[in-house]
Amino acid sequence: MTDRERGPVSRRALLAGGALSVGGAIAVGAAAVRTGGDHAAPTPAPAAAGGQTIAFHGAHQAGVETPAQAHASFVALDLAAVADRAALRRMMLVLTDDAARLTQGVAPLADGQPELARMPARLTVTFGFGPRLFDVAGLTAQRPSSLQQLPAFGIDKLQQGWSGGDVLLQICADDPVTVAHAQRMLVKDSRSFATVRWVQRGFRNARGTQDDGVTQRNVLGQLDGTRNPAPGSDVFASAVWTDSGPAWLHGGTTVVIRRIHAELEKWDAADTVGKEFAVGRRLSDGAPLTGRLELDEPDFNAKNELGFPVISEFSHVSRAQVGSDRLRIFRRPYNYDEPPGADGTADSGLVFASYQRDIGEQFIPIQRKLDDADLMNEWITPIGSAVFAVPPGCEPGGWIGQSLLG
Amino acid sequence: MTDRERGPVSRRALLAGGALSVGGAIAVGAAAVRTGGDHAAPTPAPAAAGGQTIAFHGAHQAGVETPAQAHASFVALDLAAVADRAALRRMMLVLTDDAARLTQGVAPLADGQPELARMPARLTVTFGFGPRLFDVAGLTAQRPSSLQQLPAFGIDKLQQGWSGGDVLLQICADDPVTVAHAQRMLVKDSRSFATVRWVQRGFRNARGTQDDGVTQRNVLGQLDGTRNPAPGSDVFASAVWTDSGPAWLHGGTTVVIRRIHAELEKWDAADTVGKEFAVGRRLSDGAPLTGRLELDEPDFNAKNELGFPVISEFSHVSRAQVGSDRLRIFRRPYNYDEPPGADGTADSGLVFASYQRDIGEQFIPIQRKLDDADLMNEWITPIGSAVFAVPPGCEPGGWIGQSLLG
Repeated sequence: MTDRERGPVSRRALLAGGALSVGGAIAVGAAAVRTGGDHAAPTPAPAAAGGQTIAFHGAHQAGVETPAQAHASFVALDLAAVADRAALRRMMLVLTDDAARLTQGVAPLADGQPELARMPARLTVTFGFGPRLFDVAGLTAQRPSSLQQLPAFGIDKLQQGWSGGDVLLQICADDPVTVAHAQRMLVKDSRSFATVRWVQRGFRNARGTQDDGVTQRNVLGQLDGTRNPAPGSDVFASAVWTDSGPAWLHGGTTVVIRRIHAELEKWDAADTVGKEFAVGRRLSDGAPLTGRLELDEPDFNAKNELGFPVISEFSHVSRAQVGSDRLRIFRRPYNYDEPPGADGTADSGLVFASYQRDIGEQFIPIQRKLDDADLMNEWITPIGSAVFAVPPGCEPGGWIGQSLLG
Repeated sequence: MTDRERGPVSRRALLAGGALSVGGAIAVGAAAVRTGGDHAAPTPAPAAAGGQTIAFHGAHQAGVETPAQAHASFVALDLAAVADRAALRRMMLVLTDDAARLTQGVAPLADGQPELARMPARLTVTFGFGPRLFDVAGLTAQRPSSLQQLPAFGIDKLQQGWSGGDVLLQICADDPVTVAHAQRMLVKDSRSFATVRWVQRGFRNARGTQDDGVTQRNVLGQLDGTRNPAPGSDVFASAVWTDSGPAWLHGGTTVVIRRIHAELEKWDAADTVGKEFAVGRRLSDGAPLTGRLELDEPDFNAKNELGFPVISEFSHVSRAQVGSDRLRIFRRPYNYDEPPGADGTADSGLVFASYQRDIGEQFIPIQRKLDDADLMNEWITPIGSAVFAVPPGCEPGGWIGQSLLG
């Protein structure tokens, strides 16, 4: 466990109980001396993983580079009619204070169930600003061109109830009780300023199901995330962290959240050869059809005996490739699984979160290619879509959004 | 790790991948030699907990005595109009085969995503039969008197959408992906016989958040389950496993599933003294108001300086006490947390599962006392209710429900 992850919450304090509600202010102070924000450090799984913390303060917000936690709640808020720049400032001050405490295992002020804050389990809270927020704040000129609304794609069947939003709260932790409690505290403190537009809960394999760092399977059974830029790498930084446009967003990023319904009945009916042809990878181990191992580079020029490409130009892996590292996107996908219909048809799919410097430069070109001809389109349907600018992180004493609203 | 938990799925096989889809039949065979059904053995948490299995076969069904897994899905099915005893027999044969495989990390026949079956993560599938099933099967005389419908309680505000049902599938595992996949396979194979009436997803702390065996807090922040009979103990056996009435249910039990909405806004507004008075325990550590430690016996005769009982006779702990061990119930509660309303009001509470030999002898008297005067009633509202007989377990070659339907 590195110094950045240890945080002020020792396991002894957790087991002793009660100490934190008294020592809360001190604990936040202790967290404050840690700066920098290397949220990507590897995280071992001790016997009691509930005490693990991810630093809140730093150059970037946590929850992007952070190895994906098992549970996520994406909450989109609509700003109330009374909200203005001053109100937004107050809201972000309060929510930043809540998040700084909760992520370090300390109950926020006025937490009715402070005991539920004691096990952060790698909790991160990541804030995003939707396109309309800039108008509400009277800061239309500060809306970055990188926060581009998506065009209508042919495969989309978007529902308003899963789309749009003025403010994003992305709440992730390895424990579902932690996520539920943090969500409740944050939503409660936002109520004077905003209403809840949508909430999307997502899950991945539980912490400890597999060894850390193993690529996970999604509800379609695919290994998902093989070609991601490595968190902490230069490639990641150049693809994800904003370094141009309005100065207030430097060190931030943008996020696209797509709710992608999976047609699991049709997917079941396809045979393995057909599925692997559509994906361009083997289902069993995720290796490209031209390779042996998951991490082998796909060979898009390889031909089969008949002279046809081994990896179809219409396969998902082929459509999603880009020309340079700076054009890559960082995927941090979760699964969703709502109750099935009375007839037993699953309501399942992905809450697909994609981070990139610039939506127009990176996300939209990839999505256009997928929209045009991805063989996977037969089995997936985007039903929700939202875009947010993700402000940079803040240092102790600061707050998220200060460079824009302060 | 004991022999009963090791199961046929070695970690090496999991990491090697692909081996199980070939060796499936053999693996089920290997599981078959293990009998007895001590589902209550303690379960250490190795680095990759996904491979841990709970034996399917045994005298009792797993998922009752089994230390509660982190995630649960309770699925209630309504039998189709065409269902009769022969159809029920076919359904239970198929579902038993699915469950026997899935719980041991082996894909069921015709699993479209067999890779998702490889990590059982202590998966259990527990079947229950609702009151109407006996009429459908032409076996009304075999309906046990222990499966009593609950009377209307004054605090209930029951919704049909969360109540009743002919067949229960209780699916529990430490990994949410495992639960989603198992649910889909089981629901799919039930569709020729039944429709989905309701699905209730529940969660507890993630495996590894705390040390195993520690009492968990629910969404109200209370330590929940302190006074449970210890799984594997004689007290547990005499309170939970059926030993009278129709012979087919011996070794089985009954379950009551109540969806209990928590009025978290009002709970927040109460002060700690008021909350602890209502519960009869300290919130910080779960100790009775007359004791020092969580496991101390409450002293219902202790008086304060003014001569009033320290633990109010209207407190939850006081109302829930019973006269003998054989009258106790075994609680296996989960939390639920659905998206909040637009105004930010939480939709959160408990999926409260209670197991007992006899609903009329054990559950109803406790619930009557709680209904009459539990101070906690100000903050909780039952909105769903269902009862099921839980058949005994089966040995390899047998199937769940055989003693009734075979």
